Amino acid sequence: MPELRQDPVSKNWIIIATERAKRPSSFKSIQEGKNSSSNCPFCPGHETETPSEVLCFRDKDTKPNTPGWQVRVVPNKYAALSPEAEVSTNKDNFFHSMNGMGVHEVIIEGPEHDKFFSELKHEHATLILKAWQQRHRQLQQNKNLKYIQIFKNHGKAAGASLEHPHSQLIATPLIPTSTQMEIERLKSYHDENNSCLICDLLIKELEAGFRIITINKDFIAFCPFASRFPMETWIVPQQHQASFNECKEEQLEMLAATLQDILGRLRQIADDPPFNLVLYTAPLQQKEQLYHWHFKLLPRLSIVAGFELGTGIHINPTPPEIAAQYFNKNE
Amino acid sequence: MPELRQDPVSKNWIIIATERAKRPSSFKSIQEGKNSSSNCPFCPGHETETPSEVLCFRDKDTKPNTPGWQVRVVPNKYAALSPEAEVSTNKDNFFHSMNGMGVHEVIIEGPEHDKFFSELKHEHATLILKAWQQRHRQLQQNKNLKYIQIFKNHGKAAGASLEHPHSQLIATPLIPTSTQMEIERLKSYHDENNSCLICDLLIKELEAGFRIITINKDFIAFCPFASRFPMETWIVPQQHQASFNECKEEQLEMLAATLQDILGRLRQIADDPPFNLVLYTAPLQQKEQLYHWHFKLLPRLSIVAGFELGTGIHINPTPPEIAAQYFNKNE
Repeated sequence: MPELRQDPVSKNWIIIATERAKRPSSFKSIQEGKNSSSNCPFCPGHETETPSEVLCFRDKDTKPNTPGWQVRVVPNKYAALSPEAEVSTNKDNFFHSMNGMGVHEVIIEGPEHDKFFSELKHEHATLILKAWQQRHRQLQQNKNLKYIQIFKNHGKAAGASLEHPHSQLIATPLIPTSTQMEIERLKSYHDENNSCLICDLLIKELEAGFRIITINKDFIAFCPFASRFPMETWIVPQQHQASFNECKEEQLEMLAATLQDILGRLRQIADDPPFNLVLYTAPLQQKEQLYHWHFKLLPRLSIVAGFELGTGIHINPTPPEIAAQYFNKNE
Repeated sequence: MPELRQDPVSKNWIIIATERAKRPSSFKSIQEGKNSSSNCPFCPGHETETPSEVLCFRDKDTKPNTPGWQVRVVPNKYAALSPEAEVSTNKDNFFHSMNGMGVHEVIIEGPEHDKFFSELKHEHATLILKAWQQRHRQLQQNKNLKYIQIFKNHGKAAGASLEHPHSQLIATPLIPTSTQMEIERLKSYHDENNSCLICDLLIKELEAGFRIITINKDFIAFCPFASRFPMETWIVPQQHQASFNECKEEQLEMLAATLQDILGRLRQIADDPPFNLVLYTAPLQQKEQLYHWHFKLLPRLSIVAGFELGTGIHINPTPPEIAAQYFNKNE
């Protein structure tokens, strides 16, 4: 059974994922492994190699867990957290822990093994985002879940263990410490200014102008002033919405178009780099929703090394003003 | 000129390291590069390829920046921060920045290109630690510097761009946000319990027993309860000392022996894995020194992916209790 544990000094939580346990000597070979479409558990015809689908957009008259699907959501076979665990906490100054209750799902983004997100038809890309949102809305009903993270790892160096295009969803029984601190900051900013810190940040970034990549009627994409990674990009809704759940259907369509645009440009500029795409959104089960959801695109062109892990200060060799220029050259 | 910038939402600082700027398309080839001893700027005979040494333990009658040295400290040629910058701050709710004033040095750990830390003679290993401490003590005199991080990246995946054994020192004009928060936690714990959180943690870990790797008269090495990484190990002085500066000569010798032991075991258990070794110590220029310095050994057997970057929650497949067993099997 997995377990959540809190570091007494940093207060960060970690997950001990026992379903993924390996011998120390076996990590290296796993990282170097490569899988092809012939033995890919996410390719059509291999549906029985994954747990049964919990959501699927598929052709009429096709059966669950058979080919004929566009987007397929399944529980992660090697889940970091388990829906079967009971919520129970061991409160302790030094060894604070919780049972590893939670949900870990994989969104298989399409039947084609090699098709990059920006190469999909726009309707298909939108369908992936709908799957994200439907699972987010569905899992919100479970009162034991407090936060949902949706993310996409692309490339080995960004943590993708399978090549087939997919994203993941992890729902946790607690609010991550860093998210909680961001919310407190948004609250204190709101108390002082009667406005949302992230809404106001958008105004400031638009005024500055030179870090903007794209503006459309719903979203602004820009390289943030304090980018942790080269070519880092935030994609933020212009309209204030605390949670990704509130994003309307036509906005989802626009988000899909924006993500296809940005990811396609990044792939071209930096030779298909590894990246993480990560959702930041309001926690569940809270009345007062002081957040402003957004996605961060974190290209993994630089390496998180000792200085970053020790201080939390990332060294970024590419100023975001220059990164925005690279993005805009390829328009 | 480099610049320090603070994210308005997360409050984390980042360094824009303009001396390291590259085109986005050039990152990949740099990461894949490998260097041999024939073109290594850290090998004897290549001393003029680095900036001039600022500290060196060398044979009598040998000249600075020539062969004949055991340990050599030089400014980093591609420094993340610059000692020439003036300290100046642009305080702003959204675009808070400072000039990138600071120090970035490389400790070249020995003349041999391929010799791993645990294979060095004990006296030589101690000399490396003395170099760390002498530079730490020296730089503390500069009133503009507020924090010093010493770290060693081993292996490409851990951020080592050169193979030749080396460690690094970065001194910053600010206290990292995460360090500041740890100090506040130690302070509030001290106010409540009249003791040091980390001293008390050592007592608890010794009581539990099963995460301990090594105890000697000066240090305890253990796999912490909330390990972020598989095989993560903390090496903590038993005697309360806020700063690494306070570590006495005979303790440095014992620390060298402890690090040689732990790193040697890790190398054997996990097939020479990439790792970061990172110093956590008290900030400079503070009267009240509420910290308890220690080293963290962070093996990079798992990958920091989207979930970790978005939530700060690391997924660790190896429980520290099992990690400690692996370490102890090889005694």
